[in-house]
Amino acid sequence: MTALLTDHYELTMLSAALKDGTAGRRCVFEVFARRLPTGRRYGVVAGTGRLVDLVREFRFTEAEVDHLRSNGVVDDETAEWLAAYRFTGDIDGYAEGELYFPGSPILTVSGTFAESVLLETLILSVLNHDSAIAAAAARMVTAARGRAVIEMGARRTHEEAAVAAARAAYLAGFEYTSNLAAGYRYGIPTAGTAAHAFTLLHDDEPAAFASQVEALGKDTTLLVDTYDISQGIRNAIAVAGPELRSIRLDSGDLSVLAQQSRDLLNSLGATETKIIVSGDLDEYAIAALAAEPVDMYGAGTAVVIGSGAPTAGLVYKLVEVEGRPVVKRSENKATVGGRKTAVRRHKPTGTATEEIVVSQGVPDHQLGDRLLQHTYIVAGEPAHLPELTESRAHLRQCLISIPWEGLKLSAGDPAIPVTIVPAS
Amino acid sequence: MTALLTDHYELTMLSAALKDGTAGRRCVFEVFARRLPTGRRYGVVAGTGRLVDLVREFRFTEAEVDHLRSNGVVDDETAEWLAAYRFTGDIDGYAEGELYFPGSPILTVSGTFAESVLLETLILSVLNHDSAIAAAAARMVTAARGRAVIEMGARRTHEEAAVAAARAAYLAGFEYTSNLAAGYRYGIPTAGTAAHAFTLLHDDEPAAFASQVEALGKDTTLLVDTYDISQGIRNAIAVAGPELRSIRLDSGDLSVLAQQSRDLLNSLGATETKIIVSGDLDEYAIAALAAEPVDMYGAGTAVVIGSGAPTAGLVYKLVEVEGRPVVKRSENKATVGGRKTAVRRHKPTGTATEEIVVSQGVPDHQLGDRLLQHTYIVAGEPAHLPELTESRAHLRQCLISIPWEGLKLSAGDPAIPVTIVPAS
Repeated sequence: MTALLTDHYELTMLSAALKDGTAGRRCVFEVFARRLPTGRRYGVVAGTGRLVDLVREFRFTEAEVDHLRSNGVVDDETAEWLAAYRFTGDIDGYAEGELYFPGSPILTVSGTFAESVLLETLILSVLNHDSAIAAAAARMVTAARGRAVIEMGARRTHEEAAVAAARAAYLAGFEYTSNLAAGYRYGIPTAGTAAHAFTLLHDDEPAAFASQVEALGKDTTLLVDTYDISQGIRNAIAVAGPELRSIRLDSGDLSVLAQQSRDLLNSLGATETKIIVSGDLDEYAIAALAAEPVDMYGAGTAVVIGSGAPTAGLVYKLVEVEGRPVVKRSENKATVGGRKTAVRRHKPTGTATEEIVVSQGVPDHQLGDRLLQHTYIVAGEPAHLPELTESRAHLRQCLISIPWEGLKLSAGDPAIPVTIVPAS
Repeated sequence: MTALLTDHYELTMLSAALKDGTAGRRCVFEVFARRLPTGRRYGVVAGTGRLVDLVREFRFTEAEVDHLRSNGVVDDETAEWLAAYRFTGDIDGYAEGELYFPGSPILTVSGTFAESVLLETLILSVLNHDSAIAAAAARMVTAARGRAVIEMGARRTHEEAAVAAARAAYLAGFEYTSNLAAGYRYGIPTAGTAAHAFTLLHDDEPAAFASQVEALGKDTTLLVDTYDISQGIRNAIAVAGPELRSIRLDSGDLSVLAQQSRDLLNSLGATETKIIVSGDLDEYAIAALAAEPVDMYGAGTAVVIGSGAPTAGLVYKLVEVEGRPVVKRSENKATVGGRKTAVRRHKPTGTATEEIVVSQGVPDHQLGDRLLQHTYIVAGEPAHLPELTESRAHLRQCLISIPWEGLKLSAGDPAIPVTIVPAS
């Protein structure tokens, strides 16, 4: 049931356009960001893989159409039109895992006004959410400097948003998620061992650890901070021996505790036992632990709420009607109408230098240019899409290609400029 | 499909507990907030009405169980247990629409460890999301001082989170939502008319307005800021006459524009035409418009992302095992184990003064005390729940009852203190 994930006004506009004959005008809508969240240096396109399936399922059931008609949202003519609706236009856009900057035309929808305007809310919901999570997650992966990060934020966001967030975090380079639905739907590796409740359930900590090791083997993670951490580590190694795979610390001053824990583990002969840390970690907290003996990070709240930027601020704007560029005039004069073609320009070394976006034309080709738009849907039919793991690899490549300042966590300008060339 | 909206570690704990015999221990889990979002003076319980349905549907399908087994998440014994799972315990808690403060035991789950631990992720996802939205929305309703507010943020959040957000905003006193799925599922009044795209689609603004009025009548809202606002208002009244219901302003300095627009409408004889404003409104922007001639506010991004606090920070903690209070020791010493009973104490005037929360006991009854916990599920069966409109009325009542400082938008302490009395 995706078609009702839509704003009321899309149907009101549809009704009026069906009546006055403009519904069939050929239109181009464009998704772009006017700006990045404050201080961010890049955005990450995410959600397009999910979106294609949702667009294909975008159908109004009989019950839904009846509901809309009986509540006066649509008239009979519109109701009939909705009952037969399927999107038959084209959707092109930036690859999932691609970087974007203010003005990048990350998705372009072409079709009649009627069929294209209806998709606005769904398209923006998916891209605004998933891109926000992916951008935050990518910064955390950068901050982790090659150490693995596990996404464990399901409990801090809407239950279905959590599944999409796990997917976006994996796209951005996280290694695991705690979310079982994300494993089931998207094949993302899941991980998790025990909470404090498991220790509290048992008569004492050694009993809890013994039970966990009995059930899961020594290749598990024991959570050692329910009571006293040092004693917890001693109990863990006493029960599992130095072959214990890892311990987890979920509270306290992690930078101090990581080193103390490492020293204690080493003194107990558990030199190979890994240390996983979690507890309100964001990209800054992860970066601050770079010098500490930490082997893996668990990120929860911060990643699922986009670490300060829970929505990407993408908009869906009509840019062309019957081949003529259109633009809202009363605000930002820099907005340019018309269907855009985008390339990213690179130095011979491979470093990106700028994005060139041309309205109703094609950028001059230069050595090192890369076309940024791909086909998602042609005449209503989905094109072949990359696997999520391929998109993940693509993002990793893109992050290598931007100027090094672009990877700084501190606030700054977009990593590369976007030059938008109006139709001549 | 709700059972996989769960963290991996719930199943790992379950496996180990089934093996060692602790799975059947009688447990009590409690949902509470350690703190409110910075500066907030109250929290709003939201999502419990949705949650009860989700708990009832919490079943593992055969395909899901096979997936979990074949991916090594659970062993055969646990898989068999999951296939037969249904929650048979009890859930009590604060009414939907009730206020809460740090330490309020807003939900209490009693049952075996196994059946109760499995619900952790789902319960927290629902309550953390919906309560965050409801709290932000309630502040906006207060700031609007009796003027109607419409929720229009679907496009800025995950597509399913959007539906829950619309529900939470309505609970908090919003009058309408733009979200059609929220109308369909929860009976919330929906509203919406046209976007800038509708004007751009047409040959000129008068043509767009004429089409809209032709289709929807004069009892509609014309969006007047696609080009020049003054001309837009003149066009609107020229097309619809002074009987036009309303205009909408979606950009610019709304405090200046509202007064200018009012004056212009009046000069055109459209003295009854309402002014709706939208465009990045949060509670502060709404409050700043209190003195302006605005009739309705549209709130989008800010409400669906909780206006700076996108998650409520609620936790699900094991507080009792076989009648014995338990508590994690390595952090906040103030945490108190044991099943709690909560009352809110009031002055004879009806003003709330404090919340008394007693572990493993009942507060002394005083005149003006109100018991805060109600039955949601008994032995796995849902109890009778209030309608959403009743919960909405309850919240309105609760907000009247707190000390007036509690309604200030500025940062401050919780409106009333919570006194937690440990088991004697």
